[in-house]
Amino acid sequence: MDQAIHPQRDDGRSRVVVERVRPQVDCGRFPVKRTVGERLVVEADVFADGHDEISCQILYRHEDDKEWRVSPMTRLDEGDRWRGEFLVSQLGRYVYIVEGWIDRFGTWRRDMLSRMAAGQGLQVEFLIGAKLIDDAAASAPVEHAGKLLAWARTLREDDDLAAKKSIVLDDEAVRVIQESAHDRFRGRYDSELEAVVDREKARFSTWYEVFPRSCSPEAGRHGTLRDCEAWIPYVASMGFDVLYLPPIHPIGRTFRKGKNNSVTAQPDDVGSPWAIGAEEGGHTAVHPQLGTLEDFDRLLATAKKHGIEVALDVAFQCTPEHPYVHQHPEWFRRRPDGTFQYAENPPKKYEDIYPLDFETEDWRALWEELKRVLSFWVERGVRIFRVDNPHTKALSFWEWVIAEIKRLYPDVIFLAEAFTRPQLMYRLAKLGFSQSYTYFTWRNTKEELSKYFLELTRTEVAEYFRPNLWPNTPDILPEYLQVGGRPAFMIRLVLAATLGASYGIYGPAFELIENTPREPGSEEYLNSEKYELKHRDLNARQTLIGLVARMNAIRRENPALQSDRNLRFHETDNPVIMCYSKATDDLTNIVIVIVNLDAFHAQRGWVTLDLDALGLKTSRAFQAHDLLGEGRYLWHGARVYFELAPESLPAHIIRVRRWVRTERDFDYYL
Amino acid sequence: MDQAIHPQRDDGRSRVVVERVRPQVDCGRFPVKRTVGERLVVEADVFADGHDEISCQILYRHEDDKEWRVSPMTRLDEGDRWRGEFLVSQLGRYVYIVEGWIDRFGTWRRDMLSRMAAGQGLQVEFLIGAKLIDDAAASAPVEHAGKLLAWARTLREDDDLAAKKSIVLDDEAVRVIQESAHDRFRGRYDSELEAVVDREKARFSTWYEVFPRSCSPEAGRHGTLRDCEAWIPYVASMGFDVLYLPPIHPIGRTFRKGKNNSVTAQPDDVGSPWAIGAEEGGHTAVHPQLGTLEDFDRLLATAKKHGIEVALDVAFQCTPEHPYVHQHPEWFRRRPDGTFQYAENPPKKYEDIYPLDFETEDWRALWEELKRVLSFWVERGVRIFRVDNPHTKALSFWEWVIAEIKRLYPDVIFLAEAFTRPQLMYRLAKLGFSQSYTYFTWRNTKEELSKYFLELTRTEVAEYFRPNLWPNTPDILPEYLQVGGRPAFMIRLVLAATLGASYGIYGPAFELIENTPREPGSEEYLNSEKYELKHRDLNARQTLIGLVARMNAIRRENPALQSDRNLRFHETDNPVIMCYSKATDDLTNIVIVIVNLDAFHAQRGWVTLDLDALGLKTSRAFQAHDLLGEGRYLWHGARVYFELAPESLPAHIIRVRRWVRTERDFDYYL
Repeated sequence: MDQAIHPQRDDGRSRVVVERVRPQVDCGRFPVKRTVGERLVVEADVFADGHDEISCQILYRHEDDKEWRVSPMTRLDEGDRWRGEFLVSQLGRYVYIVEGWIDRFGTWRRDMLSRMAAGQGLQVEFLIGAKLIDDAAASAPVEHAGKLLAWARTLREDDDLAAKKSIVLDDEAVRVIQESAHDRFRGRYDSELEAVVDREKARFSTWYEVFPRSCSPEAGRHGTLRDCEAWIPYVASMGFDVLYLPPIHPIGRTFRKGKNNSVTAQPDDVGSPWAIGAEEGGHTAVHPQLGTLEDFDRLLATAKKHGIEVALDVAFQCTPEHPYVHQHPEWFRRRPDGTFQYAENPPKKYEDIYPLDFETEDWRALWEELKRVLSFWVERGVRIFRVDNPHTKALSFWEWVIAEIKRLYPDVIFLAEAFTRPQLMYRLAKLGFSQSYTYFTWRNTKEELSKYFLELTRTEVAEYFRPNLWPNTPDILPEYLQVGGRPAFMIRLVLAATLGASYGIYGPAFELIENTPREPGSEEYLNSEKYELKHRDLNARQTLIGLVARMNAIRRENPALQSDRNLRFHETDNPVIMCYSKATDDLTNIVIVIVNLDAFHAQRGWVTLDLDALGLKTSRAFQAHDLLGEGRYLWHGARVYFELAPESLPAHIIRVRRWVRTERDFDYYL
Repeated sequence: MDQAIHPQRDDGRSRVVVERVRPQVDCGRFPVKRTVGERLVVEADVFADGHDEISCQILYRHEDDKEWRVSPMTRLDEGDRWRGEFLVSQLGRYVYIVEGWIDRFGTWRRDMLSRMAAGQGLQVEFLIGAKLIDDAAASAPVEHAGKLLAWARTLREDDDLAAKKSIVLDDEAVRVIQESAHDRFRGRYDSELEAVVDREKARFSTWYEVFPRSCSPEAGRHGTLRDCEAWIPYVASMGFDVLYLPPIHPIGRTFRKGKNNSVTAQPDDVGSPWAIGAEEGGHTAVHPQLGTLEDFDRLLATAKKHGIEVALDVAFQCTPEHPYVHQHPEWFRRRPDGTFQYAENPPKKYEDIYPLDFETEDWRALWEELKRVLSFWVERGVRIFRVDNPHTKALSFWEWVIAEIKRLYPDVIFLAEAFTRPQLMYRLAKLGFSQSYTYFTWRNTKEELSKYFLELTRTEVAEYFRPNLWPNTPDILPEYLQVGGRPAFMIRLVLAATLGASYGIYGPAFELIENTPREPGSEEYLNSEKYELKHRDLNARQTLIGLVARMNAIRRENPALQSDRNLRFHETDNPVIMCYSKATDDLTNIVIVIVNLDAFHAQRGWVTLDLDALGLKTSRAFQAHDLLGEGRYLWHGARVYFELAPESLPAHIIRVRRWVRTERDFDYYL
């Protein structure tokens, strides 16, 4: 096997070429992403000079294994494209390559069939075949060697032409000989490719963001982690499996922001959780008003009982009071007047924040310390981090720290909050982030959504970028929600929950339909929770918890919605109606979503389903089960009529059920 | 500069990323191709974390140079895509990379403009700027250093706020500072990319293939190289610049093929020139019936006088009498009965040919010898080789031998005759062939042609694959020519000469409209010249020399036709009429071709020109000059009517002339 992995590249006799191996990201510079239990399908162009038959295979191994495993590849069509696959069953990194070789016995056999058909003399040709089988026997497993030598003997010595021909004609014998043959001249792809294998939650997750300080049962009292713990059943009842908390660390007092981001805070203003660091500690401390590390441990444990994981916010920035500022002043940039450089977006100044200087001479120590912060929480049981603005920290740092953490804890998931330009957003995904916030938040029309999601799911992007869709965040109350009221929230919820295998909402602002901006034209919430405590009535009349819970149940019950593969858009004759489907690879679970994107008017029209893509026949009716409305319909053919009223139900979520029975299915029909 | 080329990759402070550099072939595994005097346009995604301004540039050098040169890149739009270019002025290989860095002074200046607009206090900010200018002065060229230090002093010490602000506002000062600044943290693309630069003929060439033995002025006498020399004026009169000769080496007698590829030759049969090797010598010898090496030298010299280069055929295969067979029996495969393995395509046997065994243990010596063959002819003055069936010889051999030859003789051109599957055909181009035969020979319909030529000219293929279009070859008389008669020959000539910057014909079979196949359904010529002498009347009534000469003159006069860049197809409302254009990059030469692909019927209809793409205005008429029919028309707007009768003139070749004058051009109009 060693020889196979290290072919003599300098040997001019290696004739097989391997090209255009897929999947790969940026020439193998970055790994592709998969989750445990998936099959990694590999394709390649494999060919040689001349007319010899060739064979090829995938060689792959988990990073912890020394031995390579092999998986055969088969030719896709008459051309030079081959395909194979292997199961990724373990967390961590896999390496895979493709290698090909001349199938000398297969070539001989192909030619023999032509010669036999033409009735040519075959004596010398049989001797050639015998030699090839002898060679195969030399490298064959013990259980085959004897058989092979016997066949070679027959071809060489037997007088019985029929016996010789029967070996040529025997598919099973040919298969055994081909599998035993080991050609020493092998061609391999230029670079080894990698796949990072995460746990399933990296692919399929349902997030709920809540500010623990707003979890207090009493209005006006600062909520605690214990209060937040009491909310777990509420969150679980809606079907979420990730509870994401904004930073829980001590909040600075210097230049603390007041309500509505005012630059002058009142004495009782609570400040922004993203202003991290105070006398009480920094990124490994808990804000005293929230409680203690032990309270945090309890929260984790209770969440776990309800099938929920807690995701922590990672915001690598410091207030002027952060311990780093006096312990490691060299990690911050200084101004010529000796003061620390605060954050700014000129002419705006954010004097409550000192950014870490990733260009410090002491960058190695800084990196190690930030890794220690992550490790601290990992060791406490946290396995999911939502990273705040990773695009404003050094990219090479992220590549390093994510690899370092995942080397020991391959089950850790990182979500990148990088609302930035596409190349930078994608780069973060390439260099290790498991999931990413997306532009979904601002994509509203059919054209915008379909174009964007085709890019995310049907291009190379899908190999490394896992979207996590958020209709709202504490920073973003999109105009669509501001103007569209309750129907808009329903529409965006349905879209997020079905277009994305991972999605999240910032609650309870979302389910309670909070949609007042700070001022017209702003995407900031009025009286934003980022700067003050909130107290809400979770049982308010307008709550969407029923729909949220239903959507999350539908997601759990339908594997098609648990992956972003196989997303497909279908034609509609109404420009504000969008139709798309998701399906499992084996097409055993197919979900078709028809959404009215118009939050103001009832809409109707026709959908034309791409039945071929869904493996459905035009010739037979099937049962379409609306998982939202609970209606069941008999659909026949590609064209389907619909009506959707935004106030009552802006979408159909159709699960394709069984074929409708006909007389042909009746026992005695035939 | 060294530091720029070898940035500290391990330094975590390198924040700029370079991605998706184009052009490149297979992740830089192969060079792109250009010709001397072209500009190599390079694009890349370049970006960094955060909000700093960045700069980037191309670093490039010719392989003979030690020093890198730089060429600036500019941002393409608001995104992260940048573009630059450099001139390739020398034959040989160029290396290019893209590197980016933080533009610290540009960032500072951008922020200063915001601060100044907001009326903020600037004292400390000026000090920051002064430090940046000081840093720039340290690495600045002498003529700038003083200026820089003065500016820094002004920012640091001057009490005159206006003087300080004027530096910020002075675009020229800013430019000088930015150019002088050298940021030590640079990001570079992962791999160095290469371009092979050939002479112009690799891009633009016009080939004529002739069998010297058919050049005899007397019927029945074996033609010689001296006879061929006498044909040069004829070939030159048609405007060809490459005269390609089938192999001129001694022809074997063993199993020599008779007329029409008969397996039994008559004593006077001349054999196939591709059956190379006899008592008289092998690949470095001249067939005695053709003459001597000195005759060949004369042919070269005479051709040169007429502006014609002679291309030799390279067919690396041997007859049983080839000197290699007894000198190097180890270079051939043996059969178990001790005999040499002849060529075959079972059940067909080609016992007149022994293929070289590229898997021989002695492969290094074989490679060296074949290189010696090429060197032999190169040293004799040959600079163009047409390689017979390169796809049946080891691919790594070609990569090696072409690089070896071009290392000493970078002006050598190799044309690959690889009528094989696309991946293999493309691979040969990637690994070094300058030009390639194509599937043009079998592409006849509008759809087939436009699809194929879009692939060749508008995809990555264009970076490494240079098509050379042949309407016929001694091996291929396509059905279109068999059935379509004279109009078909005219149509295919026009297509080849205008769709391809390089094209060739096998003559005089082509211009004399020879189109009888050996038998129905065959693409072989009846009484093929491959196996017998031909004697023809070059002045026959049906000759197409007039059209051939006209087409070649049009090609010489129109730079647009001398490159395969900027090929564009235009809509027509008639399915057998094709319209396309070629243009120089600067649009000073535009040629529009309208071809009737129907060899049997006159066709008419409308073309809709993509005027935008051609830089033409819909609002003004222009003069359209038909270079074939010599008519001149005034065209106005995108829609043009045409009628084309195949017997007389199956195509318009329109050169866009000047705008038609209007009253506005009259001296006193305004």
